[in-house]
Amino acid sequence: MKRYRALAEELAATIRAGTLRPGERMPSVRQLCRDQRVSPATAMHAYEALEAAGYVESRPRSGHYVGRAWQTPPAEPRRTRPPAGSTRVEISELVFQILEGVRDREVVPLGSAFPSPALFPWARLARHLGSSARRMDPWSTVKSLPPGMDELRHQIARRYLAFGCQVAPDEIVITSGALEALNLSLQTVTRAGDTIAIEAPTFYACLQAIEQHGLKALEIPTRPREGIDLDALEKAIGRHAIKACWLMTTFQNPLGATLPEDKKRALVKLLARHEIPLIEDDAYAELHFDEEPVKPAKAFDEAGLVLHCGTFSKCLAPGYRLGWAAAGRHAQALQRRKITSTLATSIPIQHAISQYLAEGGYDAHLRRLRQALAQQHAAALRALREHFPDGYRVVPPAGGYFLWIELPDDVDALEVHRLALHEGISVAPGPMFSARGGFRCCIRLNTGHPWTDELDGAVATLGRVVRRLARGK
Amino acid sequence: MKRYRALAEELAATIRAGTLRPGERMPSVRQLCRDQRVSPATAMHAYEALEAAGYVESRPRSGHYVGRAWQTPPAEPRRTRPPAGSTRVEISELVFQILEGVRDREVVPLGSAFPSPALFPWARLARHLGSSARRMDPWSTVKSLPPGMDELRHQIARRYLAFGCQVAPDEIVITSGALEALNLSLQTVTRAGDTIAIEAPTFYACLQAIEQHGLKALEIPTRPREGIDLDALEKAIGRHAIKACWLMTTFQNPLGATLPEDKKRALVKLLARHEIPLIEDDAYAELHFDEEPVKPAKAFDEAGLVLHCGTFSKCLAPGYRLGWAAAGRHAQALQRRKITSTLATSIPIQHAISQYLAEGGYDAHLRRLRQALAQQHAAALRALREHFPDGYRVVPPAGGYFLWIELPDDVDALEVHRLALHEGISVAPGPMFSARGGFRCCIRLNTGHPWTDELDGAVATLGRVVRRLARGK
Repeated sequence: MKRYRALAEELAATIRAGTLRPGERMPSVRQLCRDQRVSPATAMHAYEALEAAGYVESRPRSGHYVGRAWQTPPAEPRRTRPPAGSTRVEISELVFQILEGVRDREVVPLGSAFPSPALFPWARLARHLGSSARRMDPWSTVKSLPPGMDELRHQIARRYLAFGCQVAPDEIVITSGALEALNLSLQTVTRAGDTIAIEAPTFYACLQAIEQHGLKALEIPTRPREGIDLDALEKAIGRHAIKACWLMTTFQNPLGATLPEDKKRALVKLLARHEIPLIEDDAYAELHFDEEPVKPAKAFDEAGLVLHCGTFSKCLAPGYRLGWAAAGRHAQALQRRKITSTLATSIPIQHAISQYLAEGGYDAHLRRLRQALAQQHAAALRALREHFPDGYRVVPPAGGYFLWIELPDDVDALEVHRLALHEGISVAPGPMFSARGGFRCCIRLNTGHPWTDELDGAVATLGRVVRRLARGK
Repeated sequence: MKRYRALAEELAATIRAGTLRPGERMPSVRQLCRDQRVSPATAMHAYEALEAAGYVESRPRSGHYVGRAWQTPPAEPRRTRPPAGSTRVEISELVFQILEGVRDREVVPLGSAFPSPALFPWARLARHLGSSARRMDPWSTVKSLPPGMDELRHQIARRYLAFGCQVAPDEIVITSGALEALNLSLQTVTRAGDTIAIEAPTFYACLQAIEQHGLKALEIPTRPREGIDLDALEKAIGRHAIKACWLMTTFQNPLGATLPEDKKRALVKLLARHEIPLIEDDAYAELHFDEEPVKPAKAFDEAGLVLHCGTFSKCLAPGYRLGWAAAGRHAQALQRRKITSTLATSIPIQHAISQYLAEGGYDAHLRRLRQALAQQHAAALRALREHFPDGYRVVPPAGGYFLWIELPDDVDALEVHRLALHEGISVAPGPMFSARGGFRCCIRLNTGHPWTDELDGAVATLGRVVRRLARGK
């Protein structure tokens, strides 16, 4: 563990123990440096982490204070226990109904799947779009058919290095967003009737894909911090003919969980032993709050069995629809699927993003974006503490922009959704993330929007709704 | 029939009869005006049509002459006779092999599916891409999720009026190119195992879609000018549980055939009687050589059963990947399919094309494009007459950029393809367009490239290859 993390843990323990109470002043950075023999940077970093987790608040020119809303930290959600056995999925109708309600810009988007458009470098992207289109060789419309533009694939391959991955440009297929990459991956490695292992809860688009391709879902239990339970997965592999896994191993949507590195290694090994392809949805890879990127399972893939799907939609250019699959040994088959389903990904878009990546500025943008998301996260956690009745459970994730909240057992998330929407607020109710309508007492909140009084008010309203439903039983 | 058409037909008959012989001077425009009592414009138009069909050549400042290469016009290809009964499709491997060979820019692209990139308004498109992206409201990345950008859907709906169609913006779903629209349409109205009626020959992407979705193809005979044989289709409907038709009723790829208006009306009526959806691929709609657009079958659809798929890829912006489906009663289901497979179509691309359409210039571009394609067509037909051995069959289509050529029965198109590729020339061999490897003696030639000596030389080389193979037997 990094020094600042250890320091933050120590201070958090002091707060949890009640030694330092809500509203009390924390030791100054200078004090910490002296007492703990750390550098000012480490002390600052520790406070940032504590702030992100909601333990402390900083006041300009005054220092750090124990969070006013902080009493005892909420408990963690429990390990999930989806029913055993695989199942056909019929989720789409529910999901579509809920998504419809979320699109209205007047509705407070706590149920949205998207980060705020305000966080992205639109002017710069527009400049690249115009100038790269002007310079584009018209013949590249033929040349950049799948697998896609060479230069872009090289840049993506280079970027994998920071994530501890050796990915050859040759195994990268450019797609129209991560969702296409995931769907093509699924179609490449399965046939109708096959059983697919997924996390419970899981991203609803995964359930929809399984439903539409006539597959069966096998939901594997997860832990709130670490995600998929590998023992449970191994047992499931022993019992079922699993043809593929579709997992989010980092900042999982909706949990926010991240499988630790050693478990990612074990996961890849386990699947390789059984020759099971892993479709790894890594849409939030760039949104880590820590400085260090998180290695994907792909980093440990020696057999070429991991189809790693990435995107620029969450970290750079929402709506541009540019993603990719690094598909290992399945790259050629996936490329062919791409050709027969949507032919190519928009060539000017490929050029523009490639030019943006080449020109630099991406890292600076990412630093700002990550900081903004971490702050919004902290603000949302604070608002929850302030406005939600006791008894809810949550784990602050280390990246992404979702919070998965387990409400008291007797609170029906679909009711929360319905009542909240009535008040002009959306939430994503747990059953959207389940093949069999599970997670009835869970909701996913979007923290991808710059925090405002309106959002704070929306959380307060949600808190009242939850309180009412908890009492009503 | 328009006056100029009638006049052209008359003159062509005179040539066919041998009254006017190759190299002889045709009546001057003034003479025609006087003798036939037509306007100079009509006379000019008639000569343009004759030139496009290869009957005459114009010599600058000298007038029109009977085409030197013209002896007797080549015969029409025969009505096709695919084997009866539906079949699973396994075409992809062959198609991919052939497409691979076509991507090399050094290869003369007679086998290509794309028109020359030189024919499109790139600078203007680039300007719109840059400026519309600069002006784009970032929130439109959420707002323009499927069915897509409102303004663009309105513009497309308005454009349908010129084609005699009443299409509501509400039934239009924006897609990433026509191929996505077609695939989504197919998935919307079928399930694995269903039987789909298609033309024989048909566009290979249709065969690949049928293969990948586990459907069965029922190939219906066609005539070289008119396309699908409606009597045969009606009989097939009586014998098989056909769940959908996937047809190109205008400038069919590869035939170039166009189903006449009354037969389109009959087709729609026939399918409505049996509640069979029609997936109408109308990718070449804008590429008519005549002034008048050709009505699609969609124009006669009262039951909402026609899913009409269009695109800007062939007429305005190749590689931008912007298409749509006007999906009638299936619009909502198709929109949902779109959301779950690729989520959205690139928003800046939607904005750019919408801005281009709004600003005007589209019609002027289309006029230039159509004229260029008609001229290239005529040049290709002339080159065929000059360089191909007698006995090939071809119909000059009224739009698009393909020629379907039936070679003597003993010439193997796959051999033609192989030998031609060896000489640096691609062709699209007939079996690519058949569910069961039919059309062994047919090839499709691309006339979408400005005519050059290189192309003329390539046709000469092809002619030699054909001659060699015909003799070899």
